[in-house]
Order: sequence, then C-alpha cells, then structure tokens
Amino acid sequence: MNRLIHRPKVKNMKFQAPKGTRDFYPEDMAARNWIMEIWRRVSLRNGFEEYDGPIFELLDLYKAKSGEGIVSELFHFEDRGGRELAIRPEMTPTLARMIAARANSLSRPIKWFSLPRLCRAERPQRGRLREFFQWNIDVVGIDDVVSDAECILVAIDFFREVGLTPDDVVMKVNSRSLLSSLLAAQGFEKQRHEEIFAVLDKRDKLSWEAFVETVEKVSRDGEEKTTLLSIGQAAGPEGLAGLTEMAKENAAAEAELDRLRQLLALLTSMGVGEYCRFDMGVVRGLAYYTGVVFEAFGKGEFQRAICGGGRYGRLLEAVGGPPMSGIGFGTSDVVILTLLAELNRLPAEATKARRVDLFLIDADPSLFDEVLALAARLRRIGLAAEFSYRRQALGKQLKQASACSASRAVIVGSEYTQRQAVSVKDLASGEQVEIGVDRFLANPHGWPWSDSD
Amino acid sequence: MNRLIHRPKVKNMKFQAPKGTRDFYPEDMAARNWIMEIWRRVSLRNGFEEYDGPIFELLDLYKAKSGEGIVSELFHFEDRGGRELAIRPEMTPTLARMIAARANSLSRPIKWFSLPRLCRAERPQRGRLREFFQWNIDVVGIDDVVSDAECILVAIDFFREVGLTPDDVVMKVNSRSLLSSLLAAQGFEKQRHEEIFAVLDKRDKLSWEAFVETVEKVSRDGEEKTTLLSIGQAAGPEGLAGLTEMAKENAAAEAELDRLRQLLALLTSMGVGEYCRFDMGVVRGLAYYTGVVFEAFGKGEFQRAICGGGRYGRLLEAVGGPPMSGIGFGTSDVVILTLLAELNRLPAEATKARRVDLFLIDADPSLFDEVLALAARLRRIGLAAEFSYRRQALGKQLKQASACSASRAVIVGSEYTQRQAVSVKDLASGEQVEIGVDRFLANPHGWPWSDSD
Repeated sequence: MNRLIHRPKVKNMKFQAPKGTRDFYPEDMAARNWIMEIWRRVSLRNGFEEYDGPIFELLDLYKAKSGEGIVSELFHFEDRGGRELAIRPEMTPTLARMIAARANSLSRPIKWFSLPRLCRAERPQRGRLREFFQWNIDVVGIDDVVSDAECILVAIDFFREVGLTPDDVVMKVNSRSLLSSLLAAQGFEKQRHEEIFAVLDKRDKLSWEAFVETVEKVSRDGEEKTTLLSIGQAAGPEGLAGLTEMAKENAAAEAELDRLRQLLALLTSMGVGEYCRFDMGVVRGLAYYTGVVFEAFGKGEFQRAICGGGRYGRLLEAVGGPPMSGIGFGTSDVVILTLLAELNRLPAEATKARRVDLFLIDADPSLFDEVLALAARLRRIGLAAEFSYRRQALGKQLKQASACSASRAVIVGSEYTQRQAVSVKDLASGEQVEIGVDRFLANPHGWPWSDSD
Repeated sequence: MNRLIHRPKVKNMKFQAPKGTRDFYPEDMAARNWIMEIWRRVSLRNGFEEYDGPIFELLDLYKAKSGEGIVSELFHFEDRGGRELAIRPEMTPTLARMIAARANSLSRPIKWFSLPRLCRAERPQRGRLREFFQWNIDVVGIDDVVSDAECILVAIDFFREVGLTPDDVVMKVNSRSLLSSLLAAQGFEKQRHEEIFAVLDKRDKLSWEAFVETVEKVSRDGEEKTTLLSIGQAAGPEGLAGLTEMAKENAAAEAELDRLRQLLALLTSMGVGEYCRFDMGVVRGLAYYTGVVFEAFGKGEFQRAICGGGRYGRLLEAVGGPPMSGIGFGTSDVVILTLLAELNRLPAEATKARRVDLFLIDADPSLFDEVLALAARLRRIGLAAEFSYRRQALGKQLKQASACSASRAVIVGSEYTQRQAVSVKDLASGEQVEIGVDRFLANPHGWPWSDSD
C-alpha cells in the first residue's frame, strides 16, 4: 500500500515522476477511482452537486484569502501575458470565486461538492505529498444549524460506506464562536482570541507539560491560566456541563452553547451521534473559520486527523463576493487510503484494474475474423470481451483467458461454421455448453441458458 | 452549449477564472462527467486499464520528446529545489516514462487509457482552450496489425455509444510507412520525406490551388509534382488501387500496402468498416508517428478533426526506455461536446447536475427529528433523500419538492406517531399511499407496494 504514498525508486532511468508526486499505475488508479467513486456517490445521495474549476488560478486570489505568506507554498508562474498564476493548493478560493460570480442567480442553499487535484510546494513527508486529491463538501448561503449537522452527516455517511465504525473514528466537534464568547465572558479581549485559538488547538499535538507551558505564555496571571486550561480541557458531555457553568448569565455564550447542544442533538437524530464528541481541543488552524469546527481522527494506531472543516462567515467577501455564510469540509485520498490500508479495509475491487467478462478463442485461425466480429458486438452491448492478438493453439488461448482472470471463455469452432453456435466454458468449473450465437448475444449473462431463453 | 467553451463575462467581479480556462458549474460538470464516464466505460469494455501521472513533469521530459520549441507552449516554473517543471500539455511523454520505468515487469500488450487534464499556453480560440480534458487510448509493446485495428475500433465504439453514425463521422486511415516506402520507390530520398509529409498533410486544409502551389515548391520537376499530386489525392478503394500500380515490384511498398489492406479488412470484420476510409490526406503533424495514422472528421457542418492517432515506433527510446512500438489516439472534451451540442445529440442526463429521489416533509415541526432520522437512513441505503432546512407549512415543502424535481414526497405526519407509517406521494400524478416505515425502508422503490412486499 505504500506505493500509494511513495513511488518506488527506479535506477538508471532517464526520467522519473517529479519529487512528491505519484504515478498511478493501473492498480493505484483503481484505488483512486474506488475512493473517488464512493465520494461522488455519497455526495450525490446527500443532495450535493459536483463542480470544478481550473487547475490554476490568479495568484492574487490565493493572496486575497491567505495573505502574501501563501506564495512560497504554491507552484506559481507567469503566462505569456504576464499574469501571475498558481496551481490550486486548495479548492475553497475557487468555490468562493465561482459562487461570488453567480451569487444572485444560484438558488440557496448551495450544496456543492468537488474532487479536485491539488498541489502544494511543501516538503514531501509521510501522509503529505506535493500532489493529492481532495473531497470537498460545502453548504453555502445558509447559517442554519441543520446545515452544520448535514455537513457532518455527509462525512460520517462516507465513513460508514467504507466500513469505518465509531471504534475506528471519532468526529470531534467544537465551535469557535462559542470559544470566542466564553473568552469574552471571562474577560479576554477580542484581539487576544486568535492567539489563544492557536494555543488551544495544540492541546493534542503537544505533551501535557508542553501544552501547560504554552498556555502560561499567553496568560497574564494564574487565574487566566486556570481558566484557559479548564476551557481547553473541556470535552464530552461533562466538558459541556462545565462550560454551562462558565457561560451562565452571559447571553451570547449561552446562545452559542445552545446551538452546539442543538447540533449534537441533530446528529443523534440523524443516527450518527455515536461518532461525534464535543471537544474544545479542536480549533483548526485556518483563520477563516467563524463558527462550528470539526475534525475526524483515527483511533488506535492511526491517531491522525482524517477530515476537517467548519463554518466560514466571511469567505466570499474576501474574493469580492456578497456576505454569505457557509460550512464545509475536506479530506484527501492519501490520508483515507493510508488509513484503510493500515486497517486492512481495502476491498479487492479497490486494486482491480481490469475486468474481463469473456475471453474469445478461435479453434482455428481461419475463424479469427468471426472472433473479432463477435468481440466487437459483445463490447458494443457492454461486455468486456478480450481475445489474443496472436493466433495460437486453443490450449494456449485458454491459458491466456485464465491468466487475465476472465470468468468464461467463448470458443468459436466448427459448430460456428456448421450451425452458428459457440461453446461457452466456465473457467472455474471447466463446464462447457454450446449455444446459438443469437441466443448468446441476446442474453450473454444467462449461463447455463435454459431452453426458455 | 457555448458555456462549455467560453465562460460568460462577469462584470465588476474582483476575480475571474484565468484566460482560456473554464469554470465547471454543476450543469457543465454534469456534461464533463457524462462524457468522461462514457470514455471510461468504452475503454474498460475494450480491455483497457486506466492510469494517470502527475499534473506536472520535469520540463526536460517534454524537451526530450518534442525539442526546445515546445517550451513556449507550456506553463512552466521552478520548484524550491530549482527543478524546472511544466504542467502537462499531453499525456504521451508521461505514458512513455511510466512504461519505460517498468518495461520489464508489465505484461504485454499494455492496453492503457487515461482521462488527463491538460494545459497549453496557447492563445485561446474556438475549440482550443488553455485547459481541457483528453481521452487517451494506447496499445504498447506489440506491432501487430490487429492492435492497429483494435485501437481504431475503440474510437468507433465510442462514436456509436454517443450516437454518431457513419453519416456524422468518417475515420480517415493512412500509413506513414506506406507513404514513405512509396516515396522511396518513386526515387524521393529519405531526408526529403518529412517535408513532403507536412505538405501532403495540408491537402484538406488549403484550397486546391494553394495545395498545388505548395506541392510545386517541394518538387524538383514536373514529374515529381505529378507523382506527389497523384499520391496526395489517393483516397478510398480507387485510391488504394492506384497506389497498387505505383508500388508494383517494390517489396517494401507492397508489404506496407498489404498491411493497410489487412487493417481495413479487420475493421470490416469488426463491423466498423462503414466508418473507415483510406485517405492519403491524413499524415498528422506529430513527427513521432511511424506507421498507421488516422483521424476522425465530422461531416456536414462540423468538418473538423475530432480524434486522431497513430503508431509510434521509437517513442519510449526518446525518454530512455527500451525499443517498443505502440499505437494510440486522443480526443478532447471540448471538441466532442461541441460536436454533440451542434448536432443536438446531448441527452438530458448530460446536463442534469442533481438527482433527488425523495423529498421528506414534516406535517408538523415537532416531527422534523423523524424526518432527519429517515433521511439519513434512506441516504445510507443509496437514495438521494432531501428535506427543507426551514420549518414551514406542508404546502410550501411540497412546492420545494417539486422545484427540485423529486419524483416522490414522503410525508411524516400523525400516522407516524400513531402507527409508525408515512405517506408517500407521487409528485407527477398526485396519488398518495400510506405505508409502514419498515416496509418502506425495506423496499423504497416498490411503489405502490402490494400487500406481499
């Protein structure tokens, strides 16, 4: 499975894939298609429509969203007209641009998904490549808590689809606006919040001692430190109960707490409550989140984030669009396929590159034209019908049929010239039946063909 | 349909898609997915396996295949390590590199397909964009005429799949090696062939007078001019007969002519002969073709190339691989979707972005949790089940259901609390039936549900 992450080094070859990228040989491509098709299917049944944009955008679009600092993380270049362009490192700026351009004509809520190829000029490391695929889900144009719940439901609908249970994955849910109002209620000035967010987000990434030390640094006194540590530790129903005390008599904080409780109740109604857990340790690094934030983590050996998202209140404005709230999440092929491979949950079809339904064989080279005619007709009606390029003995052709895992061989022999019939052989059992070509074409899956066919 | 080609100009927006690229709003994305899925399906049933490579390659890879001149047509850039990279303008160099890297372990023939996103830094014009998608089919590691035939069969299998008949499309087939051996037999030195290829390839792109003039320029005397004009005009069975005269008593030319005749006979056996026509006017611009070349053209109003390919004998060597012959073709989403739109052959599903199977409605806001629970369960079993984010009157929810083209509404009302049943309403006929929730979930498509369900 590592081949999904690190391509094998080939020596003495003139050219290799660029650093941090992958070649998708058919078996790797099968896995990519397998996961992409599941993402597409889950998105569609949850009522999302697919969109996409160009692989590159104006560099300024990324600067507008993330600041000048983003430039060093991008593959950027100039076109002949001197425009500065960059390969997309994420989909959200494109989404914001596209929605902003049609803000007046798109009916809301806008429920969109995308499966973009993305590139980042970072140093390749485990689970992080310079090129990868993402699944993006967004609900834009509505600020209802039901849309928060639906967005999280989609992620968990996917987990279930690939067999990930609450024993494998936990969806940690938090709210930045709740955190913000709690901090305000406790006397932390607005301009200090971003800094505190960054500290609290490190809770599970640092040792407890290192975390306490970092909290100390942003605290002005022991009381602040105690408050931040107790906010930062809050998780689960008990954590929520503790915060209720803290929010008491502060209308804003109580409203935010109410909304979070409502969200968790909706997720329970939707039957995915056992995956979800309130956790103040999830704040998310991206500055544009303004409300609910969530992140799914693997349990056991795989304690890494596998999907994350949140509500963004002012994203469209950043790219010149109208004020419009949205919520979304993203996850990548690299992290999901690595997780499933480590858990041994990749089904056989995820690495099967080729399907051969039937292998056509001529019993005599003079019948090869008939093999070709039959193969073309079978393909035309949707069957993967193969044949050997080389004219060779029947036995050798049968071997080739087995080698490519065909389930059945169709032998065109003397029965064809005599009575327009072929022999169909089941390659597993060795059983063989003769059937008229027309009857066969009318029902090629009908093995062993009763007289009523 | 022009939106597939030219994105609408939006005024006063801060950001737009870069020049020559497209935004794929859901209805555009539906068309792209529709064509890509057909390409994938046709490829698989013809026994091809999908592969892909990175979106960018080392710039040197493209120089190795096409020379320094290619650089100005590419979007290229440096990574932080100073490596020169370029966004892929075509898939063949990646294909050659990947096959060369595993030449010893891949079993042959290698039948691969790809659906790459490609970018070219050219000036956008009708049917040519800076970013587009291609379908690539290749058979590598075999030089058999059957593989020539199979490759062309795949293109025509696709034409048939989208309803393009021999009245809409002609597949012009030629052979560069035949042309070469004919020229040699007529005394044209090898080093003049490339120049003559370029001239003959212009036959259908110039007026007859301009073509004759160009032929004159490369002819040393009137006899050469007559020969080149008679070769260049050769097409169809009569053309082939004429060349037979010319090839007489030249073993190489006769062998090449034999192979071409054999190819046309194989295509007839495969049932696609009526699409194909020998034509000396197709030589193809790419220097790496060494054998059969072919190009499909639209008939009637749409007289443009819609797909082209050929046999390449030495491509892998150019990127450091072993000598290996291959044949392949490519076509793009832009040209195919434009053709189908002009012929009015795009089916409704090609622009349908969203599928809603069921729209769930609460007869009373207190039942909304039940709507959510039911929606999540229906989605889990694969149905696209929608609901309104807003709690509103039943009539308004029914209107919303019709607006999103749901075929049925499922109403959760008092029958739910009383006897765990829902009312299913056919939105076309208005007919409505009550059914127990469990029976409904066991067979959600079973309308109108007989007692035996």
